[in-house]
Amino acid sequence: MSGKQTQDELSAVDPSRRKFLGTTAMAGLAGTGAVLGLTACGAPAPAQGDKSAPAAAASAENGKYEVAPGKLDAYYLISSGGHSGEARVLGCPSGRTIKRIPVFNIDPMVGWGITNESRAIIGTRPDGQLNYWTGDTHHVHGSYNNGTYDGKYFWVNDKLNARVARIRGDTFETDKIVELPNVQGQHGLFPDKRDPVDASINHTTRVFAGAEFHTPLPNDGRDKESPEKYGCLFTCVDALSMEVRWQCRIDGNMDLIATSYDGKYAASDQYNTEGGVHYEDMMSAEQDACVFFNIARIEQAIAAGKSTTIGNSKVPVVDGRKEANPDPKTSLTCYVPVPKNPHGVNASPDGKYFICSGKLSPTCTVIDLALIDQWFNGELAKPRDAVVAEPNVGLGPLHTAFDGRGNAYTTLFLDSKIAKWSVDGAIKQFKGDASAKVILDTIDVQYQPGHGFTSMGETNQPDGQFFNSGNKFSKDRFLPVGPLHVETEQLIDISGEKMKLIHDHSAYSEPHDGIIVRADIIKTRQIYDLDEFPNAVKTKEDSTIERNGNKVHIKLISQAPAFSMREFTVKKGDIVTITLTNHDKVEDLTHGFGIPKYNISFIVNPLETKSVTFVADKPGVFWCYCLHFCHALHLEMRSRLIVEG
Amino acid sequence: MSGKQTQDELSAVDPSRRKFLGTTAMAGLAGTGAVLGLTACGAPAPAQGDKSAPAAAASAENGKYEVAPGKLDAYYLISSGGHSGEARVLGCPSGRTIKRIPVFNIDPMVGWGITNESRAIIGTRPDGQLNYWTGDTHHVHGSYNNGTYDGKYFWVNDKLNARVARIRGDTFETDKIVELPNVQGQHGLFPDKRDPVDASINHTTRVFAGAEFHTPLPNDGRDKESPEKYGCLFTCVDALSMEVRWQCRIDGNMDLIATSYDGKYAASDQYNTEGGVHYEDMMSAEQDACVFFNIARIEQAIAAGKSTTIGNSKVPVVDGRKEANPDPKTSLTCYVPVPKNPHGVNASPDGKYFICSGKLSPTCTVIDLALIDQWFNGELAKPRDAVVAEPNVGLGPLHTAFDGRGNAYTTLFLDSKIAKWSVDGAIKQFKGDASAKVILDTIDVQYQPGHGFTSMGETNQPDGQFFNSGNKFSKDRFLPVGPLHVETEQLIDISGEKMKLIHDHSAYSEPHDGIIVRADIIKTRQIYDLDEFPNAVKTKEDSTIERNGNKVHIKLISQAPAFSMREFTVKKGDIVTITLTNHDKVEDLTHGFGIPKYNISFIVNPLETKSVTFVADKPGVFWCYCLHFCHALHLEMRSRLIVEG
Repeated sequence: MSGKQTQDELSAVDPSRRKFLGTTAMAGLAGTGAVLGLTACGAPAPAQGDKSAPAAAASAENGKYEVAPGKLDAYYLISSGGHSGEARVLGCPSGRTIKRIPVFNIDPMVGWGITNESRAIIGTRPDGQLNYWTGDTHHVHGSYNNGTYDGKYFWVNDKLNARVARIRGDTFETDKIVELPNVQGQHGLFPDKRDPVDASINHTTRVFAGAEFHTPLPNDGRDKESPEKYGCLFTCVDALSMEVRWQCRIDGNMDLIATSYDGKYAASDQYNTEGGVHYEDMMSAEQDACVFFNIARIEQAIAAGKSTTIGNSKVPVVDGRKEANPDPKTSLTCYVPVPKNPHGVNASPDGKYFICSGKLSPTCTVIDLALIDQWFNGELAKPRDAVVAEPNVGLGPLHTAFDGRGNAYTTLFLDSKIAKWSVDGAIKQFKGDASAKVILDTIDVQYQPGHGFTSMGETNQPDGQFFNSGNKFSKDRFLPVGPLHVETEQLIDISGEKMKLIHDHSAYSEPHDGIIVRADIIKTRQIYDLDEFPNAVKTKEDSTIERNGNKVHIKLISQAPAFSMREFTVKKGDIVTITLTNHDKVEDLTHGFGIPKYNISFIVNPLETKSVTFVADKPGVFWCYCLHFCHALHLEMRSRLIVEG
Repeated sequence: MSGKQTQDELSAVDPSRRKFLGTTAMAGLAGTGAVLGLTACGAPAPAQGDKSAPAAAASAENGKYEVAPGKLDAYYLISSGGHSGEARVLGCPSGRTIKRIPVFNIDPMVGWGITNESRAIIGTRPDGQLNYWTGDTHHVHGSYNNGTYDGKYFWVNDKLNARVARIRGDTFETDKIVELPNVQGQHGLFPDKRDPVDASINHTTRVFAGAEFHTPLPNDGRDKESPEKYGCLFTCVDALSMEVRWQCRIDGNMDLIATSYDGKYAASDQYNTEGGVHYEDMMSAEQDACVFFNIARIEQAIAAGKSTTIGNSKVPVVDGRKEANPDPKTSLTCYVPVPKNPHGVNASPDGKYFICSGKLSPTCTVIDLALIDQWFNGELAKPRDAVVAEPNVGLGPLHTAFDGRGNAYTTLFLDSKIAKWSVDGAIKQFKGDASAKVILDTIDVQYQPGHGFTSMGETNQPDGQFFNSGNKFSKDRFLPVGPLHVETEQLIDISGEKMKLIHDHSAYSEPHDGIIVRADIIKTRQIYDLDEFPNAVKTKEDSTIERNGNKVHIKLISQAPAFSMREFTVKKGDIVTITLTNHDKVEDLTHGFGIPKYNISFIVNPLETKSVTFVADKPGVFWCYCLHFCHALHLEMRSRLIVEG
């Protein structure tokens, strides 16, 4: 292969560290379990952190990036939260968590999974239990307008239970969750950036999701012992209704997803195109692929009725497998071979390239979207010809981000480094220009970076200020807190020639992907409107108790420092619904509502309404109290629920 | 009352702000709902935060307190988490959250509430559901040895469901939870510091808990309409076994708790000694009390059989009500009158005083413990004579902390300030010395502070470095994220004459109390030992599938990048237990285990064993995968659960 940087060239950056990590890692990868040692033990022993009070400033640079008391952050950093099941909003550069957004988890703080309204969004079983209270969020992406964020929505995946959730940008609350049919391991997720056909639609209307785990289709007990019959579906969700529009069956499985700025393509990196069920089999082939989806053609095929359905699902499914698509000029998909077991795929902000990061290969693969156009037009001999560069960037490349100045930043998991490289340089080198400068800088991170992303780097307005490195091992970077370590998010200033490490932020496991959004783009509301809630208790006169058989509806108002009724009596066995409207209209004046021993805990924000339903199965007196500090008489704010035996 | 600072004297500190807030607030408190306005609207409009990129350094001081990358914090800050149900460990001064400790909540990240082991700690109902997945943690305190923290244990209360939980200091994991019988609103909590009788026991052996809500005793449906028959219990939990040792019934209810350094006393501030059920009634009396518990006498009474039991509980209960204790020389309790509706009570680090913060009174009440001794010996005319100072510190005093140099720091909720005052000065003033200097400094905080605590300030080793102000409203201090605001923890340098605001940290609602512990005191373990877990899968040979009727036990080992079995087959309807032992012994090498569609998510830290049990009710193929990034082949680390239909 042409265009590869030599090992020596790379070693020049930091020879001793490279030597220590590099060869061992590659050797390990050829084996079965030996890599492990590298991952966990192989990083060079870092300088021991100091326990000194207060910690001394390390350099004259200190404080330059500090967000002083009373100052606001310049960016929102919106992040996934791994198997915590939540998403998060942080300030950048401060790293302060401004909001945890409960999505797939239960959160008694806000009452997520407890209120009737949130339970309806999550979904319940016939016995009233939630469908799930687990989830595994990996990727958060925002809605686009004209190639950049419009701040309206954010979407996040659940890899564990194959769901996609939507978060409103004005309230930072989850408003929809959809479970994808016939999908397991819903990993990659990306909204489209404009419509592939209608040029007037220059904003997000679709969200794409990729299945990582291949299963029998349908997965109802058939074909379970025949992995060769397993398959994966690529799913299109309607961004507005959050209903599943269509699915496309492919060869192999899918990892991350990228979408093009012109709306034509979504693509997903693939590992395990072998369809293996053991990890050795999953890395046996020398090449996997990046599969491109021709959105317009898929939707034309569906409009033309060229679809089937799977199992009980009514979602139309088209066949995007190679065998079903022999002619590029009508093909729904294009499989571009890339070195084996790639991980991330990212769209360059100039709209020209998708870049696949090699993971088990020390390379990044640059795919030219204009050449993908040519292939689908029958004008390119083979998909691999769309590759215009494949630079050697270091060991374990996972994700690539951009600064808008033509440079790419790739996280190197095994090297524990970030490599800054020139996309144009790599293309020149690939064409044979031995003098082309590709690697421009590297910086050590602590340790083993996964996702990396830059400020506004996934829009057409990248500003080249910050790179966030989400590191999978923190080891000695924070005070020890027992066997479970926090993760490290390291913020790097990329505004100059050399990358500069600014802060080590901590992150509850596991942050994966995130985006850094300019603060002016997000427009939030700080209070609700009574009329938004059909069940709002609008006046004191509406605050009543209604009984219908053994169903009792208690309609309450909160206004500091009291609830509108000081006591309410029900009978043992009653099915009780409490609806609570917060009539305090002052920003930040949230009330809580807790019922001791009844496992009820939720909040109502200013002018918000929420409700809970429970069976009054315990007789006695239960002090319903305000959970959320509201007032000098907050502790006195409570009412008696009296359950007659 | 002598010894009060005049309004003018206080106004001198910051006349305009004081004028704006002060008189309105007091007027409001005399009314019913008008305080609300003050709380939410009354704070002066702060300077608007800047959205500038990157945020400019505000002053030359910037960076002085920054914990640079690679440096460790000097202190652990261990905090409650309000109705999130969790506790937290932060680094101080950086404010970085190093660990969230699930306690009363469900956390799919670690599997808390999902694994059999955690479910046993939380407790389950006959139908297999958890007893609770809500909780309201307010106060965290650590175990003592020789008057300072020994780092072994931390305890935290659940106000919502009346529980006390213990967290191990070596792993920062919850290991015991006990529900207190006949208690509602378990609010205040404090461990003792030494034994009141056995001088050789100079460490924590008891944890005290106060009930805030008075209910019928027992609360099983009787006496529910007769609030005059309601009562509250003060509870003693055994620090080691976590079983309830005894309870003491009192007049009125309880708020916060303090314990003396000599082990003799626990005390609780009381509001609503009126026994009111509406907030107006709860603030009708001009005085409430601080109730002191004579621990040795209570335990002697129990040893002498002078106890009863309540309802189904077998816990011995003694009567600490005034009427039952007419003679100070045998009394179990001492009720010291303090101005109405006090909030916090804190022990000065010199062991001499308990200080009650007035809340609705602008005063702090200093109680001399030597005089409490005298009262219990029949040598003091009346409990109120134990008060040696009652300085006017500002509006809405809630909690008081100490620097070890004789100064107290009181949070002023209504004034949105911290007042630094001299305890000796206040005592002199109370004695009539008009020249005594009491208020030494005040600082504005943003906004409405609740708990305040200092580095090592609740030990006999206070170091006077930092004060943390936990503020209940953040308003404009962070980027807006919708109607629900994050809370603000402000860190203040108290090492000099003047207090200095260092950082605004963010905190998920609601942090209440916390402690700041010197880093060298905490000794954690970074890996487990296989032998700690009776159900450990110790060798590859032990990794088997055992069937007993419809019960199937799958014994697994994780070792990156694979689980010991690549597939395991069960039948639909089987009750499946999966036990997973992590054989990776390298620090920070945690694995996760998720089963799609089966709502199973948990982690195993190095050499740890956990198990889950579920009914295999869905046929098909389910890819159990590693949830916690572990290795370059992490994504490939998965095994097939095959459920035959």
